[in-house]
Amino acid sequence: MLNVAVIGQQATEWIELLRQTRPEDRFESDADWVDPSVVNAAVISIPNAKPLLRFPSLGMIQSLWMGVDAILSDPNLDPDVPLARMVDPGMPASMAETVAAYVLWSHRFGDVYQRNQRAGVWSALDQPLASQRTVTMLGLGELGRTCAQSLLRLGFRVVGWSRSGAPVDGVAVTTDLHTALAAGEIAVNLLPLTAETRGILNASAFSVMPKGSVLINVGRGAHVIDDELLDALDTDHIRHAVLDVFNAEPLAPGHRFWSHDRVTVTPHVASDSMPETCVPVVAENLRRFAAGEPLNNLVDRTRGY
Amino acid sequence: MLNVAVIGQQATEWIELLRQTRPEDRFESDADWVDPSVVNAAVISIPNAKPLLRFPSLGMIQSLWMGVDAILSDPNLDPDVPLARMVDPGMPASMAETVAAYVLWSHRFGDVYQRNQRAGVWSALDQPLASQRTVTMLGLGELGRTCAQSLLRLGFRVVGWSRSGAPVDGVAVTTDLHTALAAGEIAVNLLPLTAETRGILNASAFSVMPKGSVLINVGRGAHVIDDELLDALDTDHIRHAVLDVFNAEPLAPGHRFWSHDRVTVTPHVASDSMPETCVPVVAENLRRFAAGEPLNNLVDRTRGY
Repeated sequence: MLNVAVIGQQATEWIELLRQTRPEDRFESDADWVDPSVVNAAVISIPNAKPLLRFPSLGMIQSLWMGVDAILSDPNLDPDVPLARMVDPGMPASMAETVAAYVLWSHRFGDVYQRNQRAGVWSALDQPLASQRTVTMLGLGELGRTCAQSLLRLGFRVVGWSRSGAPVDGVAVTTDLHTALAAGEIAVNLLPLTAETRGILNASAFSVMPKGSVLINVGRGAHVIDDELLDALDTDHIRHAVLDVFNAEPLAPGHRFWSHDRVTVTPHVASDSMPETCVPVVAENLRRFAAGEPLNNLVDRTRGY
Repeated sequence: MLNVAVIGQQATEWIELLRQTRPEDRFESDADWVDPSVVNAAVISIPNAKPLLRFPSLGMIQSLWMGVDAILSDPNLDPDVPLARMVDPGMPASMAETVAAYVLWSHRFGDVYQRNQRAGVWSALDQPLASQRTVTMLGLGELGRTCAQSLLRLGFRVVGWSRSGAPVDGVAVTTDLHTALAAGEIAVNLLPLTAETRGILNASAFSVMPKGSVLINVGRGAHVIDDELLDALDTDHIRHAVLDVFNAEPLAPGHRFWSHDRVTVTPHVASDSMPETCVPVVAENLRRFAAGEPLNNLVDRTRGY
């Protein structure tokens, strides 16, 4: 039997679902463990490790988030406890919907017509078909590949950038970032946040994107150098940015992104971990831990994901 | 040999393409025919028939527009000359992109997040998947069917309304308008404009749509009773309207739609007739006319399309 501390957002909901799935284990929220020393596993959905300090006997930590950059950078995180990240089978579906929504919206000049509406301007633009448009995907992991397939089904041409350069059906993959950025008029960022990718969306990257490009950031806020993006928008080189993630979240009141007429702000909602699809993933890792088997989706702490 | 007057927008471009396709015929813009009596066919892309009066010997008129409601209601149109409308094989592709763009955008609450951004509000909504969302398609002609298929491929459930009730793969078809409107949280209008459908999007229709619904009108402006739509938006019953077509176009400066924070205005750009794909359709009808064969896409003037 495992004693599992469930920490973070919507803990009550997760506890109820986990209890139904593994009635043999005991699930309680962190404060509800009177004797924290009996707890041998943690399920966590916040970006810091401090609540884990209460539990000295942890044998595994399951993150409910796919991106573990924030928790990894917390010095409170015990370097020796195996950490698994969430690879939610429901999340790629949700992300693919968001990416398709904003790629199509940009492709049909939704951003330009929105600005024109505010100015009371009625003016039709010359409209290519999706088949005449190239989208650049930064990151071809589980999420990037699912989004790329969805864009291909909608008729877009897709160029992809990944570190490995591993082939993806229908996608022109390159390992050269500037080649990828120069090829598409709409760029979608779905990279993991690592030491190599932090600040990768900077002046140098924007300068090689075609004039009039749109950036859709559904990766991490820290991929973007905010001031350099604002410069690229202000000089009209980047036509529009759709930003779902930010260097600090919630986005600070008064940040220029809120009021910039070439920026769409959404509150980190491009995809959600859905309990229905995540619970079986967590349950399988608890089973593996109890059986002494290696965990799924174990984080490589050097690589960062 | 046919003598063809080409009338309306981008006439020069059409003339060049038509000359390449049918070098045996003579194509000139209306003003360039010194002797208008020799002209036996017209190709027209404006919503009125007045320029046709110059040509007394017309044997056929080919509209470059799919919707012929405006030209049909012009008393200058000779009732006896066969009129063909455009059924552009490229247009459904273009329309399906626009409909997918705004259905996905509404589905992912793009309209709500846009209003929240203006107010500086960071607030995530509970997000269903496309598979948990029903879209109502009003009109299941060539365009409606193509859009429905594209929405089904994106995972949406689709309910459709048509006069005939003819089955469409994957779509729950009804001939009862209120049943269709009550079933979906996003309604897309692609009806032809006829005596029966004029003003069909009115207070009665809005009242049966679920609270919080989104209306996407890519049909005709005259399907909508503007004041009744504004009432439904102002009382928060309809969450948002994406309007590409209007009772008068261009939309009049100062019309409340321009500044309403629950209305997206686009300047009649949901789909375009694309010369590349239309020219072969026009050429085939000219060949049929020259050969004495019946025209394709002949308008039934009683039915109105």
